[in-house]
Amino acid sequence: MHHVVIVGGGFGGLYAAKQLGRLGRSVRVTLIDKRNFHLFQPLLYQVATGGLSPGDIASPLRAVLRHYSNISVIQSEVFDIRVSDKTVVLKEGEVTYDTLILSAGVSHSYFGNEQWQKYAPGLKTVEDALDIRHRVFQAFEKAEQAKSDSERMAWMTFVLVGAGPTGVELAGAVAELAFATLVKDFRNIDTKKTKIILLEGADRVLPPFAEGLSDKAQKSLERLGVQVQTKAMVTDIQADCVVYKKEDAEYTIATHTVLWAAGMKASPLSAVLKRETGAELDRQGRVVVAPDLSVPQYADILVIGDLACYQHQGERPLPGVAPVAMQMGRYAACLIRNRIKGHKSKPFRYVDKGSLAVIGRNAAVADLGFIKFSGFFAWFAWVFIHIAYLIEYDNRLLVLFQWAWNYVTRKRGARLITGKVDG
Amino acid sequence: MHHVVIVGGGFGGLYAAKQLGRLGRSVRVTLIDKRNFHLFQPLLYQVATGGLSPGDIASPLRAVLRHYSNISVIQSEVFDIRVSDKTVVLKEGEVTYDTLILSAGVSHSYFGNEQWQKYAPGLKTVEDALDIRHRVFQAFEKAEQAKSDSERMAWMTFVLVGAGPTGVELAGAVAELAFATLVKDFRNIDTKKTKIILLEGADRVLPPFAEGLSDKAQKSLERLGVQVQTKAMVTDIQADCVVYKKEDAEYTIATHTVLWAAGMKASPLSAVLKRETGAELDRQGRVVVAPDLSVPQYADILVIGDLACYQHQGERPLPGVAPVAMQMGRYAACLIRNRIKGHKSKPFRYVDKGSLAVIGRNAAVADLGFIKFSGFFAWFAWVFIHIAYLIEYDNRLLVLFQWAWNYVTRKRGARLITGKVDG
Repeated sequence: MHHVVIVGGGFGGLYAAKQLGRLGRSVRVTLIDKRNFHLFQPLLYQVATGGLSPGDIASPLRAVLRHYSNISVIQSEVFDIRVSDKTVVLKEGEVTYDTLILSAGVSHSYFGNEQWQKYAPGLKTVEDALDIRHRVFQAFEKAEQAKSDSERMAWMTFVLVGAGPTGVELAGAVAELAFATLVKDFRNIDTKKTKIILLEGADRVLPPFAEGLSDKAQKSLERLGVQVQTKAMVTDIQADCVVYKKEDAEYTIATHTVLWAAGMKASPLSAVLKRETGAELDRQGRVVVAPDLSVPQYADILVIGDLACYQHQGERPLPGVAPVAMQMGRYAACLIRNRIKGHKSKPFRYVDKGSLAVIGRNAAVADLGFIKFSGFFAWFAWVFIHIAYLIEYDNRLLVLFQWAWNYVTRKRGARLITGKVDG
Repeated sequence: MHHVVIVGGGFGGLYAAKQLGRLGRSVRVTLIDKRNFHLFQPLLYQVATGGLSPGDIASPLRAVLRHYSNISVIQSEVFDIRVSDKTVVLKEGEVTYDTLILSAGVSHSYFGNEQWQKYAPGLKTVEDALDIRHRVFQAFEKAEQAKSDSERMAWMTFVLVGAGPTGVELAGAVAELAFATLVKDFRNIDTKKTKIILLEGADRVLPPFAEGLSDKAQKSLERLGVQVQTKAMVTDIQADCVVYKKEDAEYTIATHTVLWAAGMKASPLSAVLKRETGAELDRQGRVVVAPDLSVPQYADILVIGDLACYQHQGERPLPGVAPVAMQMGRYAACLIRNRIKGHKSKPFRYVDKGSLAVIGRNAAVADLGFIKFSGFFAWFAWVFIHIAYLIEYDNRLLVLFQWAWNYVTRKRGARLITGKVDG
């Protein structure tokens, strides 16, 4: 029986697995992930800002796949691949494949300034989100107890680096916290005086979107109280400040809370793949794939999701977003089915249903290609599309419920400072 | 204005604060807690077993108290008290009081075997619950990948030390996991073969309850698949086994997962209080209080909740449970109000509305004094009483919703393995 090994249970890997699960007996699937759950990353910023709990946006992989008896799940980390004998290597042993689907994703990159990580965490994992939640809420606590005005203001200043969707969403959510949720909670500080600064190296926010929408997004952010600085290149981050350059001048912001939403780099498995197959990697280390998502000359290895660099006829590579990964996952499964049946497959083609980014309460931008819009309806669309794509039915109900509640009350109940108690 | 400092935002401290908050301008209150949230401890075992998320049972202290303008919250840890100038000492500075309410609670005790802590975590904090959740779900993952039968069985064996309410609840919840929730999730192991062993030093489970109910609880546990060993004294815990003595014989259980629900010791602040006031401490380090909950000879220091040892006319001390702490908190607030008004107060009297302990789905025991019952109705009462006492309305709705969903589907969606990824 044809054995498919999938590495990574994100959107790409999980959608491939589910599709292959439906094939029943003609194929056997092993899904390997270092975590025991699928994470709905588009809502992770809500965990980071106390609106949702990690359990609300995570689905246990075993629970999602339990009814597919041809699928096994292994919770482990793949640290090597041997193409010569079609084997992936885990700590606990080895697994051989007939077809390998690599969907191991990406993590943050600090562009060679890894020392910044300590002061400016990124938002990729549940632990990242809880770390950010800790820092954000601890900052207000520290401000409440600050001994001087300058110390207080440094704790009440939040800097977000990178104005892609994650940076914009985080900025909007922190603004809502400071200017609505927390206004009555403190006695020594006025949270309405919080400074939220969004730094972006490009000349506009949400660079992947159409220009008009970038303008609208920036105006919405400013209405929420976020200060936006474009063409701002961060040159240093320390425990108590961020330094950036803009038009040849250098600026320093006194702050204790910097959140990183700027760069990313591929999973180390892409380097392994390069060593084994000579595959080409792009600047971020993503694997440049053939039109059928396979590694050139290695038809039995498919790379999907954020780890794949897929260039359709010289266009710019597809972005690392959930809809791309889902479609790649389904395509990979169909490709394998066709191969088993001896059928040909067409090249992968991404059907772009549009882009959406949320900014804050009632504010979002939508770019559906044929139409662009913003404001309440874009926000409404964003909320419902995100809830609809949550993997499990119970997550959907829970998040819908929690969201409606948070919307009406403007509360954020999950604002626990956990982990190490002092920060 | 009379200044009340409350140390600890558990049931005792929070109920005292809310009551004092209603007095408005006649009193000023400062609540100090090292955490920024109140934790609904009676449901913590649900977090430890993946049924609820920490956010569901935590309420931000500032949010709960925001409408009382006479209450300030400080997130910090009190590490010293100076009675001579009525001062509590924090890392960040000092706070003086007119009346001090000490409700700093208790933590686990390993009866001098602190080296067991590493292998057998207790269940007091959110971090404890996530640690236990990690261990329990990781154990099944390890069993799935085990190389030998003995290794597999050691991962599929769970030992709970202590058959008080927490031990019984955890045992029942792990049994539900193994024998219902997870049965279809694994390919190499049959979770129905899981061993769950509850060790209790006394001669029956739930020692504080009436004997007939202990029998019923034990039978319910056995029906759920839990092996109960009473009169079993644990003599050693290691990474791969638990050793216990029973009737002069010694037994060793091969296991990697031991959960501790046996002993407790008072907050270190009770020792500080002894040094400062000469207060008497009981064996667990709790402060023996006067009939009005004050420290003898120090009318301006009240000790409430689990930290207080209150003996009513030679009866045995009140147990460290939420209803006692709540009533003590309200009493302390009324005492202070009466003093300010120059009125006398009656001694504290605990109104025992009964004890309830849940064992598992549809199974609980209830001892209301005048009536004892068990089974479905006790379980139903337990669920609704616990939900009703959740501090915030949104927690109540969420937990009710999540609970109903878990009940119908037998799912436990919050079973994330988080923290350090390998265990």
